[in-house]
Amino acid sequence: MADTLTIGIDLGGTDIKGSLVDATGTLVCSRTIPTEAARGPQHVLARIAWLIEDLRRDEAAAGRQVIAAGIGSPGPLSCRDGVVYQAANLPGWNNVPIRANLAAASGLPITLENDANAAAYAEFVAGAGRGTENMVLLTLGTGIGGGVIVDGHLQHGAFENAGEIGHTIVQPDGRPCPCGQRGCLERYASASAVAQRYLEAARQCDSPPTLAGRGDVTSADVAAAARAGDEIAARVWDEACRYLAVACVNLQHVLNPERIVLGGGMMNAGEQVLEPTRRHYAALRWQLADDTLQIVPALLGNRAGMIGAALLARYERMSGD
Amino acid sequence: MADTLTIGIDLGGTDIKGSLVDATGTLVCSRTIPTEAARGPQHVLARIAWLIEDLRRDEAAAGRQVIAAGIGSPGPLSCRDGVVYQAANLPGWNNVPIRANLAAASGLPITLENDANAAAYAEFVAGAGRGTENMVLLTLGTGIGGGVIVDGHLQHGAFENAGEIGHTIVQPDGRPCPCGQRGCLERYASASAVAQRYLEAARQCDSPPTLAGRGDVTSADVAAAARAGDEIAARVWDEACRYLAVACVNLQHVLNPERIVLGGGMMNAGEQVLEPTRRHYAALRWQLADDTLQIVPALLGNRAGMIGAALLARYERMSGD
Repeated sequence: MADTLTIGIDLGGTDIKGSLVDATGTLVCSRTIPTEAARGPQHVLARIAWLIEDLRRDEAAAGRQVIAAGIGSPGPLSCRDGVVYQAANLPGWNNVPIRANLAAASGLPITLENDANAAAYAEFVAGAGRGTENMVLLTLGTGIGGGVIVDGHLQHGAFENAGEIGHTIVQPDGRPCPCGQRGCLERYASASAVAQRYLEAARQCDSPPTLAGRGDVTSADVAAAARAGDEIAARVWDEACRYLAVACVNLQHVLNPERIVLGGGMMNAGEQVLEPTRRHYAALRWQLADDTLQIVPALLGNRAGMIGAALLARYERMSGD
Repeated sequence: MADTLTIGIDLGGTDIKGSLVDATGTLVCSRTIPTEAARGPQHVLARIAWLIEDLRRDEAAAGRQVIAAGIGSPGPLSCRDGVVYQAANLPGWNNVPIRANLAAASGLPITLENDANAAAYAEFVAGAGRGTENMVLLTLGTGIGGGVIVDGHLQHGAFENAGEIGHTIVQPDGRPCPCGQRGCLERYASASAVAQRYLEAARQCDSPPTLAGRGDVTSADVAAAARAGDEIAARVWDEACRYLAVACVNLQHVLNPERIVLGGGMMNAGEQVLEPTRRHYAALRWQLADDTLQIVPALLGNRAGMIGAALLARYERMSGD
């Protein structure tokens, strides 16, 4: 079975990415097609089915059998039931039985997983988490997604909501979050939160900062402004990294993983995230034990979702679920 | 092997508790002897060895074989190495190789575990966590200990410090903790923190509150004062429960367990902890999913440590570690 392939699909609002992946997480080939999400779930499901068939044409060329396919999707969703309840940027997706639909269309066993969990599993097997048994991924994007690996297994929890690290509370009575809580990590340390907090701070500033008056500020703009000496940008950025460090301290005390892996769009800033997050972590953490957590960058970029979906399809096939 | 017994030892600064325990966590018999901690580690080790031998005299009477012994100890310690680095209220305990010492003395396989983890495992198998796969125990005492069960397994983490929930940060830049951090949960919601915060608040109060001037206030006193209408006591108590609820929200987002079990001395107040903690949890938690966490009281009281130590000794014997 080691010499077989699985298909990994990363379903997004703009594109559907698909690939043939081997047992080590290496891409054999990959394709990207537009999602055409506006045409609704049935159309998108047909496009995924077509992409799976298209990838299987390479099966013979590769000389290896395709044994299963995994779908990484935005959520909320149920892996157990194979149903996407809703999906960011996919209009009309309400309780879509994606697993049953694609299993019927393709004849393959189908595994469904949320995209952040899939990315975490990919990093664990084939990326920045290799060699660990316990790892957490945080993806710093519009929100903060997460995935938790304990003793080599991706965690779902009792209600399939494990790994929602972006909604851990890092500031009681803090900034309101659309989830209904206050003070969630992703209100401080996601790419969108950094941009929003910069604009708010800039509005209250007497001397206009670098990016004042712009409506389309991104976390990359804030990162560049901070590097260029904009004090407001530097402060907002540093606070984001400090809250990330608080989350790392808390994960360390709950799970004590070897590594926390940081990914997502905001990590395009690389060392500008890592250095202050590590520095704040060292200053905030306890001194009772030398449980030296590594905070490292993700390695698989935007391929992580489809690689992880493919690896999880293999894992599920092998464990006979 | 199901009809065998294991010995559980709970090593404390005042007493050593020991028992014979069956596969279901039921006590067959138990004994308590003074620790005589002031006489140093060698003396205490000899007393534990004596207690193990004494319990084995009941082996024949019970008609069942004793196959292993587990020691629940204060820490920090290493389960893997079988060494207690230091132990609260046990003078002179520095890097004591307790496993090797007691294995040589007793001829039994010895398992070492920290007391909070042992209690968590006992509640999981034979107490308030029965029937779950994912559970967290918080013990509200002088500090806040914890133990994390994921997929039926007690978690140690990469550096054997998983489950230190008392040192998760619930208030950035908050109250200093002897561990070196600021804003740790146990600085707000442990029994000792409740007493200390009450005394601090009372000192700043114009009209002397109920317990003013007393130097030996306990969390039980604060609980009684709150029930009797002392506003400062009521506020401090409510804040403690609200911080506990923050910790519950965060555990829910990281691990998504079915149950969080609350134990320790402060839980003598029972509903006075549970009701406000549940109420704050309901108010603080997200509204995106109905991942209905149960917050429940521990059931095994101060027997949990020795029962858990015995069950973990069985677990380790069965898994051949």
